Amino acid sequence: MTSEVEGSQRHQVFPVNGGEDELSYKRNSSLQKKGVDAFNVFIKEGILEKLDLDQVIISSPISHKAFNMVDMGCAVGANTLAAVQNVMDSVHLKLHSQGLDHLSKTLEFQVFFNDLVSSDFNTVFRSIPSDKPYYAAGVPGSFYNRLFLKSSLHFVYSGYSLHWLSKVPEGVADESSPAYNKGKIYWTTSSKEVAEAYEAQFARDFDSFLGARALEVVPGGLVAFSIVSVPPNSKCITPTLFDLMGSVLLDMAAMGLTSEEKVKSFNLPVYLPTPAQLEVLIKRNPNFTLERMEALVRPREFLLDPDFPHQIIMHYRAVMEGLFSDHFGTQIINNLFDQFEKKFKESSVFLDLSYKQVIESFVLLKRKTY
Amino acid sequence: MTSEVEGSQRHQVFPVNGGEDELSYKRNSSLQKKGVDAFNVFIKEGILEKLDLDQVIISSPISHKAFNMVDMGCAVGANTLAAVQNVMDSVHLKLHSQGLDHLSKTLEFQVFFNDLVSSDFNTVFRSIPSDKPYYAAGVPGSFYNRLFLKSSLHFVYSGYSLHWLSKVPEGVADESSPAYNKGKIYWTTSSKEVAEAYEAQFARDFDSFLGARALEVVPGGLVAFSIVSVPPNSKCITPTLFDLMGSVLLDMAAMGLTSEEKVKSFNLPVYLPTPAQLEVLIKRNPNFTLERMEALVRPREFLLDPDFPHQIIMHYRAVMEGLFSDHFGTQIINNLFDQFEKKFKESSVFLDLSYKQVIESFVLLKRKTY
Repeated sequence: MTSEVEGSQRHQVFPVNGGEDELSYKRNSSLQKKGVDAFNVFIKEGILEKLDLDQVIISSPISHKAFNMVDMGCAVGANTLAAVQNVMDSVHLKLHSQGLDHLSKTLEFQVFFNDLVSSDFNTVFRSIPSDKPYYAAGVPGSFYNRLFLKSSLHFVYSGYSLHWLSKVPEGVADESSPAYNKGKIYWTTSSKEVAEAYEAQFARDFDSFLGARALEVVPGGLVAFSIVSVPPNSKCITPTLFDLMGSVLLDMAAMGLTSEEKVKSFNLPVYLPTPAQLEVLIKRNPNFTLERMEALVRPREFLLDPDFPHQIIMHYRAVMEGLFSDHFGTQIINNLFDQFEKKFKESSVFLDLSYKQVIESFVLLKRKTY
Repeated sequence: MTSEVEGSQRHQVFPVNGGEDELSYKRNSSLQKKGVDAFNVFIKEGILEKLDLDQVIISSPISHKAFNMVDMGCAVGANTLAAVQNVMDSVHLKLHSQGLDHLSKTLEFQVFFNDLVSSDFNTVFRSIPSDKPYYAAGVPGSFYNRLFLKSSLHFVYSGYSLHWLSKVPEGVADESSPAYNKGKIYWTTSSKEVAEAYEAQFARDFDSFLGARALEVVPGGLVAFSIVSVPPNSKCITPTLFDLMGSVLLDMAAMGLTSEEKVKSFNLPVYLPTPAQLEVLIKRNPNFTLERMEALVRPREFLLDPDFPHQIIMHYRAVMEGLFSDHFGTQIINNLFDQFEKKFKESSVFLDLSYKQVIESFVLLKRKTY
């Protein structure tokens, strides 16, 4: 049964910064808010148009008369609570639209908050309001593995998490491998072999995600996720930022602040797919139908906010500090993120109009009913 | 629905010490091990003799074909994991005894770990083995409230938690109340009114526990709990220890190390019932049948171990430090527990043969099938 629970993976992929201090994810997650708001509208429409509550709950032999949902990769902050509230509001609206108002009064909701074992669940639990209209539980573990009983979920939500790989692709840190990613920490300006190793790892992980969810989601249940994506064949701000981070690390090695070996063996366990790549992976899965897919492109004006470089680096620090400090040690972290910010402010992405802002892809899937 | 989730209660009742350092509950829970071992045998026999798996799982229309269990008040440590393993082993043994070995291979287990919102779930989650044969989730909240969906649990386990009240009984810290508990922190040597206030609070809390579980446990499902109890009409070591704690607090106030006001307003939110009191409360609940009740009396030799006073005070520190430090401040905690230990070593409980060691009551209840 629960065959492969995160073993080696939990040492390779790191949770966001816990707690509530100025470097915490909780206080540096507002950059995602615009995307989260749009994603919440997308989810509301998805529930209203695509979720048959009579099928998945009322007539279902395998469920308690309850609505079970999970936020996978919930992190720590307001976004997860807003997402949960939005799903619940949408379900009540849907019940109303189906003439089932009486069920709104009795339907119970079970909400699971999932993230890596090493996440700060204590802070998540303390942020859940005590008068919440649902039963809350935390589920530790990688969503690339099974986490739930068979056919036990009606709605899976995952916001901004699926671009995190379960591990660094094999070979990219190995000097003897054709996929060795020399002097870089991401793949966009690397060799074809490196790009393929990254793409293959993303495909494996994404297949694992859908494979596990296919078993856990009831027939007719929905899976909604947002994922940071890139436009095809265009220069894009996020991969460029990752390249800048790589060059800062090389600079710091040259200054003796870290070792060249450490930089050589470091690669980001992140893959930003194009919407088309995502679509291919979704459509080859036999258990889900693709109900809707949207891309949110942020306007370039976003980049012109003079505080943007600081905000985005604080955001990345909240998200990636554990990853960097585990590999390079905690003593260089302040300097590292200061240098990232400095280099980012000096970069040409703000002036070069050919740079596309990052795309957020929203995807809605429905579990087939066989 | 989730009507009264712990609000004020979470400020009044404190979790055990988290983490893994020398003052943690995790490293000071071995004193309970003997009782836990005996309780595990009791549970194994209960599952083999009293749980009809055909009724609660195989033929049940309301369950997924899965076994859902919870440890309520799981704290942080090895005891909860051993308890979970024991329940699972016993279920497999029962399936075998019912000729249902094929189900052992496919039956999925969902295990919930419950404790107060302020508990250290991060340490609990990190202690769960990654190759566990069950799906794990943490459920934050007081078990005196609803925590789970209707009819969603097959087995409820609670070890050494139900003697913790949801709050200090009303009136005992109020100088104008007839139940004012002057100069004491527990009730055994106090007035009748104080004893009645404590007993009434315990009865209310116990009723709340059974009332919530009656809704959550499937018909035919089991509730097993252990609770620290006292023999009727005898001097008993644990209440005596609480009285000693009270006198140490008064000494410290006299020395100006804390204020008399603080001692006056402090009372332990703990009630140790006699087995007979427990039985009355159980039998007046209409939703459960009492299947078995046992009392484990520790032999007096236990008291003669020269390291016992230190062990028991370390245990109480791991369990109660939060309670004392919240009320008296952290600065007196080291001194306080040193004084407790000193006074305990000097006490006559070790010589007086009329002192009974504490009793642990084991109780097995079955949810009625209407």
